Amino acid sequence: MTYDEILKEARTCIGNYCKACPVCNGRACRNQIPGPGAKGVGDTAIRNYDKWQEIRVNMDTICANKPVDTSLEIFGHTMKYPFFAGPVGAVNLHYGEKYNDQSYNDVLVSACAKAGIAAFTGDGVDADVMKFATEAIAKEGGMGIPTIKPWNLETIQEKMNQAQSANAFAVAMDIDAAGLPFLKNMTPPAGRKSVEELHKIVRMTNVPFIVKGVMTVRGALKAEAAGADAIVVSNHGGRVLDQCPATAEVLSEIADAVKGKMKIFVDGGIRSGTDVFKALALGADGVLICRPFVTAVFGGGEEGVKTYIEKIGAELADTMSMCGSDSLKEITRDMVRC
Amino acid sequence: MTYDEILKEARTCIGNYCKACPVCNGRACRNQIPGPGAKGVGDTAIRNYDKWQEIRVNMDTICANKPVDTSLEIFGHTMKYPFFAGPVGAVNLHYGEKYNDQSYNDVLVSACAKAGIAAFTGDGVDADVMKFATEAIAKEGGMGIPTIKPWNLETIQEKMNQAQSANAFAVAMDIDAAGLPFLKNMTPPAGRKSVEELHKIVRMTNVPFIVKGVMTVRGALKAEAAGADAIVVSNHGGRVLDQCPATAEVLSEIADAVKGKMKIFVDGGIRSGTDVFKALALGADGVLICRPFVTAVFGGGEEGVKTYIEKIGAELADTMSMCGSDSLKEITRDMVRC
Amino acid sequence: MTYDEILKEARTCIGNYCKACPVCNGRACRNQIPGPGAKGVGDTAIRNYDKWQEIRVNMDTICANKPVDTSLEIFGHTMKYPFFAGPVGAVNLHYGEKYNDQSYNDVLVSACAKAGIAAFTGDGVDADVMKFATEAIAKEGGMGIPTIKPWNLETIQEKMNQAQSANAFAVAMDIDAAGLPFLKNMTPPAGRKSVEELHKIVRMTNVPFIVKGVMTVRGALKAEAAGADAIVVSNHGGRVLDQCPATAEVLSEIADAVKGKMKIFVDGGIRSGTDVFKALALGADGVLICRPFVTAVFGGGEEGVKTYIEKIGAELADTMSMCGSDSLKEITRDMVRC
Amino acid sequence: MTYDEILKEARTCIGNYCKACPVCNGRACRNQIPGPGAKGVGDTAIRNYDKWQEIRVNMDTICANKPVDTSLEIFGHTMKYPFFAGPVGAVNLHYGEKYNDQSYNDVLVSACAKAGIAAFTGDGVDADVMKFATEAIAKEGGMGIPTIKPWNLETIQEKMNQAQSANAFAVAMDIDAAGLPFLKNMTPPAGRKSVEELHKIVRMTNVPFIVKGVMTVRGALKAEAAGADAIVVSNHGGRVLDQCPATAEVLSEIADAVKGKMKIFVDGGIRSGTDVFKALALGADGVLICRPFVTAVFGGGEEGVKTYIEKIGAELADTMSMCGSDSLKEITRDMVRC
Repeated sequence: MTYDEILKEARTCIGNYCKACPVCNGRACRNQIPGPGAKGVGDTAIRNYDKWQEIRVNMDTICANKPVDTSLEIFGHTMKYPFFAGPVGAVNLHYGEKYNDQSYNDVLVSACAKAGIAAFTGDGVDADVMKFATEAIAKEGGMGIPTIKPWNLETIQEKMNQAQSANAFAVAMDIDAAGLPFLKNMTPPAGRKSVEELHKIVRMTNVPFIVKGVMTVRGALKAEAAGADAIVVSNHGGRVLDQCPATAEVLSEIADAVKGKMKIFVDGGIRSGTDVFKALALGADGVLICRPFVTAVFGGGEEGVKTYIEKIGAELADTMSMCGSDSLKEITRDMVRC
Repeated sequence: MTYDEILKEARTCIGNYCKACPVCNGRACRNQIPGPGAKGVGDTAIRNYDKWQEIRVNMDTICANKPVDTSLEIFGHTMKYPFFAGPVGAVNLHYGEKYNDQSYNDVLVSACAKAGIAAFTGDGVDADVMKFATEAIAKEGGMGIPTIKPWNLETIQEKMNQAQSANAFAVAMDIDAAGLPFLKNMTPPAGRKSVEELHKIVRMTNVPFIVKGVMTVRGALKAEAAGADAIVVSNHGGRVLDQCPATAEVLSEIADAVKGKMKIFVDGGIRSGTDVFKALALGADGVLICRPFVTAVFGGGEEGVKTYIEKIGAELADTMSMCGSDSLKEITRDMVRC
Repeated sequence: MTYDEILKEARTCIGNYCKACPVCNGRACRNQIPGPGAKGVGDTAIRNYDKWQEIRVNMDTICANKPVDTSLEIFGHTMKYPFFAGPVGAVNLHYGEKYNDQSYNDVLVSACAKAGIAAFTGDGVDADVMKFATEAIAKEGGMGIPTIKPWNLETIQEKMNQAQSANAFAVAMDIDAAGLPFLKNMTPPAGRKSVEELHKIVRMTNVPFIVKGVMTVRGALKAEAAGADAIVVSNHGGRVLDQCPATAEVLSEIADAVKGKMKIFVDGGIRSGTDVFKALALGADGVLICRPFVTAVFGGGEEGVKTYIEKIGAELADTMSMCGSDSLKEITRDMVRC
Repeated sequence: MTYDEILKEARTCIGNYCKACPVCNGRACRNQIPGPGAKGVGDTAIRNYDKWQEIRVNMDTICANKPVDTSLEIFGHTMKYPFFAGPVGAVNLHYGEKYNDQSYNDVLVSACAKAGIAAFTGDGVDADVMKFATEAIAKEGGMGIPTIKPWNLETIQEKMNQAQSANAFAVAMDIDAAGLPFLKNMTPPAGRKSVEELHKIVRMTNVPFIVKGVMTVRGALKAEAAGADAIVVSNHGGRVLDQCPATAEVLSEIADAVKGKMKIFVDGGIRSGTDVFKALALGADGVLICRPFVTAVFGGGEEGVKTYIEKIGAELADTMSMCGSDSLKEITRDMVRC
């Protein structure tokens, strides 16, 4: 099964919104929610993709030809690659009927764990979304990261408990989710959190806590002040606020401010192993890739996910090799040209 | 009635020039006067729109989740939102027969006032344009801003008297209107005004006086020297002079020069609540939106105007919330990225 | 007769190469010689046009409403406008059969002189081109500028004599013409000229001598050293060398170096009175417009030329008025935004 | 036989991948390997071409009209022009059946030598590729540059011996070839080389050694440390690593670092004599042009190659003349505008 075959199959069953495009760049689905599109004018997902393309990699092959090690040490675990599947919730709302939140999570979490990486899972107004997600993670011995929406603290505590029961090795909160159009005026309500509230949330768990949805240095410093272990530089694929900068634009300044104090992840328009390399060169410890994993699940199930992971992993290894870096630690900022 | 329905209806009755485009960006009507197009090559309206898109908003949701207050205190009044409907005159010339200057102003001024904001009204060679406009404002207790063209001083004095009779809470002059192609060589003649002349005009009224059509720091300082209470940074949607900069390009330098000495408004290509937010972040106290209000009137009458105001208002509130500003005063320049 | 009518008529009779486009911007005729196209890849004419569009004009109408004076004092003459018709030779080769070099020059030179401006005329391998040109100039009492190609000095002396017999008030040489594809390996040969040679050429005439085809500060200083009275910043519409900068890119630095020592003209993609204004703001004393005058002759004869001159003149006057400059001397660099 | 005729003929016989486009700019073949396309997203070949277009040439024709000398002294030989044909291997894989590696090399090497320049030849997993290449070079008395892939040292030594037997006047290694998709996991294996390994390789030959595939100052300094006589600033037309900078972007900084210590060549998207001129102005001693030579061979055989060489040579001479440089040494950086 090739990646092109996965895309072709996905086009037959991924619903009416996603087009399973050859390159997932936010154009065909612009301003289309439900579905994977971005909010408002809808140019943020497009910008996310485009800005990575403006960053170029500096080839240098005059170096010893050692094997390339793509593995990431994170939170006491070793991942085969420094990329994660991003969280998706309400699968039926956005992507048609082939999968539901249970079957989707079962396939994705399992396939990722088997391939040596971890999936973030989603959350939703429907409590079943988190239930199915944490059950899937539990089946893989905790190798997955539940992502809780910024509900009221009681609801968050319940979901934290579910994550703990699943032995999830880390837990995340997409702090920007209040901007999702389909969460507006729903129950439980989602909303912004002060540093104090976030501090309380961090203390609800004893596993590493990841704040997803940071786009400014100020926000990163607040996440650090709240005790977060990691941030995800993310604008939620443009789905929570229109006309944000691309994550590629803000990553390096955020990394300059908090690198070494928290782990730094980034998502948004990362579509190749070369893009993963660029993100690491700009200061990220790892990246999240979201929509293409949906396509991989719909187009190929567990095998599709495996194929996709190996594709991106091979591209990353190739780029590392061609730029003279044999491990993630050797990837330095001078290996890209902005 | 949704905004899409308003647009669809407008396309059936708004005349031959305006296309009631999904996004009003100056492209379909380029270089088309009469109608809403811009003068000459006609790229200024397009540039107005495009330059706002280059300004990005800095999301930050790590903050206390207080209610957002979008209200603007201006000239002793409280507006629900910091945006105004822009002035239109000679409705039949530009937009077909469904409305005339009387019915258009009646609908627009009334609907705006009921929705908690104010409309600027237009002026024209035909004295009835101002007559109908001020009558509409009078019906709403003065909640509207007559905009007088830069005629000779006698004519201006007559129109000032009409504004005063209507109890208009402020009055404006589009000082750049001499460049309108359809005012060339007409009677009364419209023309530039020296600081001395403008000073005389300011003293004709005892309500706040707004100079509309300022594009340079020098112009803003002259408006201040003439005693103006406010300026509108505006290139008249590209209709008075071809190949101007976009207003988004010059706003911040003008704000740096006169902020706090006069109120600062801006118009030109502002098409979403996110754009309103950007303008305020760059130093504006409020903004004018013009052509989309025409579409709203033609496509939905009073209900159309209400729907449009609430749409833009909700987008503004959402953007404020997602960027961590709970009132207009909390919107600061570091919340945008230029 | 409107300008649109002129264009429409021109399309019926201007030959196979020129398309008499609504905006003459080098795109439709790209890389097409014979005809008006540019050489090689052919993007220089396009760039000439585009770079003017990036320069914006700073509107300011808070000023006394005096009449606008567009007249230019140059070489002891008063021109109604600061623009000239550019030189064209070998009319049949490039633009079909309706006109020949004799009838084209007769119409153009006469119509320009009657409208208060002057035409540059062309030259060619065929000696008749210069003969007809200077005869046309003689009929208008010398109100025209013969443009001699950089032949050997004997040939130049002959053509200088023709110019003097015609009482031409100035004479020009397109020093860059050796790059024209259709002059390669012809007789007489055209070629570069050293400062010493150019100095000899300047001394062949007692009327002002204009060096056309300067694109660098160094070139401008050499023209000055040779004793030239004026330069034309020009890349010959892209026809002599591919991939030059646009003239709008180099004008201001050349003006900074030689302004006041020689008169400075510029051509290349100037297509509106607003563009003329920009050129003057950047340091030019006057501009040449070439291809649109061809269209005007083919599409409307003398009346076409008159219509075109008045169109551009009116646009210039309007721009001057809207930017607060009432004479050419009042046009300053801060009136444009680069 | 004109260049257009060559292109037309090539389209009938160059296989399914190359389209023999009027301008070879990487667009039609984007992301298509086999064939001439670039790897991955495939935008590096496009960027290579585009970035040359952004560099403009500074015309200056006020100078003595001496003959232009385009000849290059290199490694003890005099070339008529400072450009070389680039290396191609595995002709049948990429370009159909009309030629094989033997007949292709015979035509190309011979036609280049007769026209006064030299061809680089290719290498491949199939040992015959190098065999045929060096045989073709031998027939022309060594006027050609075998390009060896970065195999293991034993294999390289064998190929060095073949080059020596052919009396090749120089030898090259495309050090970046390990990134070629069709060399992955083949025998012999190709891979990166350390400075020490490269030093050993340099010492295997007593003719000048050229390292092809340098994109950074660091890489250039390592090539120098290894004892290389020359480098080719190259990203292999985008075929070895996706999303590299264009060579035009990095050339001048590399030249600043090593100019005078090693000869500097550059390739990638150079498609006209004007582009050759730009490369020399930015610090290159010579350039390689690759794909258009394939088109020339397929479309016109030896005559096609001759026509193409003379076309590019004439464009270079014309540009040199129009910019005031009468020999390669007179081409200086201030003759281009970046």
